Amino acid sequence: LVPGYRVFDPSFEYLFNSYYNAVGRQFPRPQRGLLARPTLATVLDYRGHVDTAMERLLAEGDTGSNTAWQIVELGLHHEQQHQELLYTDIKHIFAASPLAPAYDAGLPAPPSRDPGPLRWIERPQGRVMIGHAGGGFAFDNELPVHGVELLPHAIASRPVTNAEYQAFIEDGGYRRAELWLSDGWAESRRQDWSAPLYWRRQDGEWWEFTLAGLRPLDSNAPVCHLSFYEADAYARWAGARLPREEEWEALAQGAPVGGNLADGGLLQPGAAAEAGVEGAVQLFGDVWEWTASAYGPYPGYRAAPGAFGEYNGKFMCNQLVLRGGSCVTPAGHVRASYRNFFYPRDRWQFSGIRLARDLS
Amino acid sequence: LVPGYRVFDPSFEYLFNSYYNAVGRQFPRPQRGLLARPTLATVLDYRGHVDTAMERLLAEGDTGSNTAWQIVELGLHHEQQHQELLYTDIKHIFAASPLAPAYDAGLPAPPSRDPGPLRWIERPQGRVMIGHAGGGFAFDNELPVHGVELLPHAIASRPVTNAEYQAFIEDGGYRRAELWLSDGWAESRRQDWSAPLYWRRQDGEWWEFTLAGLRPLDSNAPVCHLSFYEADAYARWAGARLPREEEWEALAQGAPVGGNLADGGLLQPGAAAEAGVEGAVQLFGDVWEWTASAYGPYPGYRAAPGAFGEYNGKFMCNQLVLRGGSCVTPAGHVRASYRNFFYPRDRWQFSGIRLARDLS
Amino acid sequence: LVPGYRVFDPSFEYLFNSYYNAVGRQFPRPQRGLLARPTLATVLDYRGHVDTAMERLLAEGDTGSNTAWQIVELGLHHEQQHQELLYTDIKHIFAASPLAPAYDAGLPAPPSRDPGPLRWIERPQGRVMIGHAGGGFAFDNELPVHGVELLPHAIASRPVTNAEYQAFIEDGGYRRAELWLSDGWAESRRQDWSAPLYWRRQDGEWWEFTLAGLRPLDSNAPVCHLSFYEADAYARWAGARLPREEEWEALAQGAPVGGNLADGGLLQPGAAAEAGVEGAVQLFGDVWEWTASAYGPYPGYRAAPGAFGEYNGKFMCNQLVLRGGSCVTPAGHVRASYRNFFYPRDRWQFSGIRLARDLS
Amino acid sequence: LVPGYRVFDPSFEYLFNSYYNAVGRQFPRPQRGLLARPTLATVLDYRGHVDTAMERLLAEGDTGSNTAWQIVELGLHHEQQHQELLYTDIKHIFAASPLAPAYDAGLPAPPSRDPGPLRWIERPQGRVMIGHAGGGFAFDNELPVHGVELLPHAIASRPVTNAEYQAFIEDGGYRRAELWLSDGWAESRRQDWSAPLYWRRQDGEWWEFTLAGLRPLDSNAPVCHLSFYEADAYARWAGARLPREEEWEALAQGAPVGGNLADGGLLQPGAAAEAGVEGAVQLFGDVWEWTASAYGPYPGYRAAPGAFGEYNGKFMCNQLVLRGGSCVTPAGHVRASYRNFFYPRDRWQFSGIRLARDLS
Repeated sequence: LVPGYRVFDPSFEYLFNSYYNAVGRQFPRPQRGLLARPTLATVLDYRGHVDTAMERLLAEGDTGSNTAWQIVELGLHHEQQHQELLYTDIKHIFAASPLAPAYDAGLPAPPSRDPGPLRWIERPQGRVMIGHAGGGFAFDNELPVHGVELLPHAIASRPVTNAEYQAFIEDGGYRRAELWLSDGWAESRRQDWSAPLYWRRQDGEWWEFTLAGLRPLDSNAPVCHLSFYEADAYARWAGARLPREEEWEALAQGAPVGGNLADGGLLQPGAAAEAGVEGAVQLFGDVWEWTASAYGPYPGYRAAPGAFGEYNGKFMCNQLVLRGGSCVTPAGHVRASYRNFFYPRDRWQFSGIRLARDLS
Repeated sequence: LVPGYRVFDPSFEYLFNSYYNAVGRQFPRPQRGLLARPTLATVLDYRGHVDTAMERLLAEGDTGSNTAWQIVELGLHHEQQHQELLYTDIKHIFAASPLAPAYDAGLPAPPSRDPGPLRWIERPQGRVMIGHAGGGFAFDNELPVHGVELLPHAIASRPVTNAEYQAFIEDGGYRRAELWLSDGWAESRRQDWSAPLYWRRQDGEWWEFTLAGLRPLDSNAPVCHLSFYEADAYARWAGARLPREEEWEALAQGAPVGGNLADGGLLQPGAAAEAGVEGAVQLFGDVWEWTASAYGPYPGYRAAPGAFGEYNGKFMCNQLVLRGGSCVTPAGHVRASYRNFFYPRDRWQFSGIRLARDLS
Repeated sequence: LVPGYRVFDPSFEYLFNSYYNAVGRQFPRPQRGLLARPTLATVLDYRGHVDTAMERLLAEGDTGSNTAWQIVELGLHHEQQHQELLYTDIKHIFAASPLAPAYDAGLPAPPSRDPGPLRWIERPQGRVMIGHAGGGFAFDNELPVHGVELLPHAIASRPVTNAEYQAFIEDGGYRRAELWLSDGWAESRRQDWSAPLYWRRQDGEWWEFTLAGLRPLDSNAPVCHLSFYEADAYARWAGARLPREEEWEALAQGAPVGGNLADGGLLQPGAAAEAGVEGAVQLFGDVWEWTASAYGPYPGYRAAPGAFGEYNGKFMCNQLVLRGGSCVTPAGHVRASYRNFFYPRDRWQFSGIRLARDLS
Repeated sequence: LVPGYRVFDPSFEYLFNSYYNAVGRQFPRPQRGLLARPTLATVLDYRGHVDTAMERLLAEGDTGSNTAWQIVELGLHHEQQHQELLYTDIKHIFAASPLAPAYDAGLPAPPSRDPGPLRWIERPQGRVMIGHAGGGFAFDNELPVHGVELLPHAIASRPVTNAEYQAFIEDGGYRRAELWLSDGWAESRRQDWSAPLYWRRQDGEWWEFTLAGLRPLDSNAPVCHLSFYEADAYARWAGARLPREEEWEALAQGAPVGGNLADGGLLQPGAAAEAGVEGAVQLFGDVWEWTASAYGPYPGYRAAPGAFGEYNGKFMCNQLVLRGGSCVTPAGHVRASYRNFFYPRDRWQFSGIRLARDLS
């Protein structure tokens, strides 16, 4: 769209193409650990090159069609996803090192306070409208708006805490096959899971690896870095289940977006503050919440053509929906209709549990 | 339940426990190819031992509670699933042999006739009730009955034929990444797929391995032995999509169960006979039909306790629903609400495609 | 060589070609567990077909050249190797079954008697001639005869017994990395080895799976079914080493071939009988003995052309030499110069340990 | 040995322990690609910390025993191996990047000149003494000195060139199973080899990735970055074989150590300069030369106790000996008796081919 634009380095298209089949060849994933990175100077040059071109494009003010603005807008929201992934990936890489290096050792710890017992918020039978309505940006996977029938059910007022999850561990949760999905049990044995991803046992105490390095586990904070399989097993152990994504969205509709998000700078889930509140708390921020819903197309879904159609549609298999947003998600990125998705075995996201159960 | 009953051989519980965690240890799957089978004489003795005990139980007529009858009934339906799997497994094993042995070389070939062009059956927007209602046996995964909203859509009158699928192949369907789900493309490359599982190319002609051995491919018959990924890619190529399971079930409600099922003895899908009919044909029999729906619990689903609860619930992740029944399914086993399920990469079932599309 | 000969079934060449690249395509090994076997009737027909043609060939008495007789002779010795492998493979398959079926439950147990302490047979420095000399058949890998210098050393009078090996286990042999070769330790951890392949622990006692089914472990019999890695670690633990193949051969030259071989029908290693003898015992029979020598070409080695050249030469990498013969080797098959070879991780052969050490 | 010494960082022992089982836990290899490296500042601090302690130790001049000096000397020779590995590893990492970055784009190219036809140097039958004799440092695997008998043979005057290897490729060398060892053919198919590791085909011409980046392939230079399997297949194709390590050593005894080694700064193999010379050239420098000899203990070999014994002895299985030294080996590191060793599939070393053949 910028006349005379030249790509910074033609080999970058191959080097950095992680999954767009429409764009061409991809560097083989198993060999990524061997990749020498471009130097910092080259990366900054590259950034400057792109910024200059973008500024030229934006300065022209009108491209004769809407397409350019749609691409720019989609690109900005995609960039926000990468900003979140930078936090999760840095944490993952640093956690793998025996040196346990901190991303920022000076990060303030979230305040810890007793969130009190979990309350059940009862929700009646009825028809709800699901999907992104009204103005503003949304991904294609949030559309179209459509009706869904809900049965009477209850949803937990807050996410499950570390203390509650510890009780599951102590009750043999990781050793009792009857609590697990079949694929979950197999994966759990294959990887030898016995606690959330970043929990560390030292001298009889639990610690947690955070972006500030190792910290004592805060029993009041929401449990985090769980796979779907663990979330599902915990729910079964607790005599409950995970919420369906439409139940979650119906609950969150109208609730203000806010909470412990990336903009607050804590970068670690913290205990619920709103004791005394009646409704649900921590819907946004702190931890992404696994739902019981497989990630698929809404009725009437249509993918965009070309590479943009690859953005969401081609992942609509084998993954589960998460709702809400976490302590490393940009505040401007989330909304009640937002559908995040990961494989059921994934643990490196800031992912936790909100319980639900049927009322009959 | 039978007083004084003794197990035939205590080691059978371990040897033949394929996936019941509640029952105890399981023989490791990757080593199954090494298993020496009990001799035919031992197998027949075992069968006789079980039959005798079952006859004693049934002769007593009343056990004082309903539990025994429920277990027996569930067992009979489970046995029907194994009868179907015997056909699919024998076909799979024989197809792997360079000798291409026939299960029964004398099987009559299904009649071939031109099914005519595919018709689209239009279905209006509306609320439908989904799940097993009325009497008779049903698995727990067909319950509870619940309401679902459908958008206006159309469903194909019959499954996709071999000739139609051949056009997809010739148009480069297996080489065009943009037609495939991301996981499907990766699996397709990993296994180097280029045609349905049992198609064989010889001297410029397509042949198909069947339970009667190699036969020339019948272009009029429904295409069979496809993964979900291939079914989904074909649908995208055809400008359509796979039906949602509730769309399929709503269409099939009231339709009589019948068609080319195991009881007919052909054991191979055949061309649609009902030219001139107005509605959908081949809903039951011939091929199981992949739907776009991930296999999960219906709203309000409850698993039975103990080993019976392992039967369906613990598989509700990573699999897709298939509907209908195939040419190797016992006629007494299927119904409109029946939910079959397999992994999206699975191809050894008699699985095919019925198209759908949105009307807006 | 037989005019008008027709192959029994053209697909057998592919089906049964386990490793001859010169012969054509090979059935993929990882899928062998899926292979449906030809029926017993077909196998017997096939055998009859081949026998008839061989008898016709042999009856003609002269083929005009020596080639045919050389091929027949090589084929007979190759057949003997398969006869031995039938025993080892049947044992391996049956051992994998929880039913622990016996190949022949009526096999007499080898007599058990205390073999007395291991004696060291001292051997002086000197030059020896190694390789097959004199008449009779030999494989190409036993040639040419060549001189090798030996340093002063001692070789054990008999193989290591089960009781001696048990002391290694009880001393933590399988848990002490310093006793193991680097690759051996890695393999041992990967496969979680803690005892010889067919030892079974039941109620505080060691049992051993044999071709006669499970039997109490005979502490006097030679330890068997060890990998080279285990043999090497045991030797290091015992303050000794494995013999070099030339040391073994020099010791065995002139010793009569005999002992507990397949023709004796025990099919299980037994304790040394020859108490009071001065020299080495059990050189042949009972167990193949791992040497410290990598399997490679002798100086001046020449492989035969074509498929016959594939017979030995193409395996001269990554394997270790074993000497002697075992309780399932045909008596007519072994000699002092015979070189058997297997990968260092292999355990399913009847393989054991004879110690050696340097004298300085 | 330095009173009051404190380790720089206790976790380094775990982080940087690549294979010493005696030293303790090792960071799992498959996860190394995930390791965040200590910063440059930390690395320099660490280096300074060690240097200071070493200087203190050396300044004391006498430790009361020889042990300290032996450890220091072994450490220095070990450090030289790491200096060479830094070159090979940097080249390997950079070659994996689509950007093909140069380690030093300003490296001068080795002069190219026609080395003339390969000459065969004839060597008579006879007894030679092998192993490190005389003064100076040697690794334990070069000991003890011992006699070996050689048959009459010939060795090539120089390594195989790129042009000669190209003829092998063009003659279908990578597609003809009969030229390969069984394990070599399997590995070659698994990794889909069709040329040496760093050859690149661009616009109909061969290029080679070097530490100076991509350069046109010099047809006169020795072929480099081959596995043992390729070297062995080439030799078979050429009607020759690889030399036995004792043949190589006997030839090199008395030859001065010199040539294209790391100290010359070319860091790339170059064509033979010594046209007109009678004897063998390029024995040292340019490329390591694969031999036909499996890496094992010499007769009478003794490993040192403890971690020093792990240095060489525990790798004496599954690897092959290479002789000579390459263009990235420090000149002070090599000698006629030096035994390098790698797995037969390894290609990332500067490894090439010198042919040999039997004279009978």
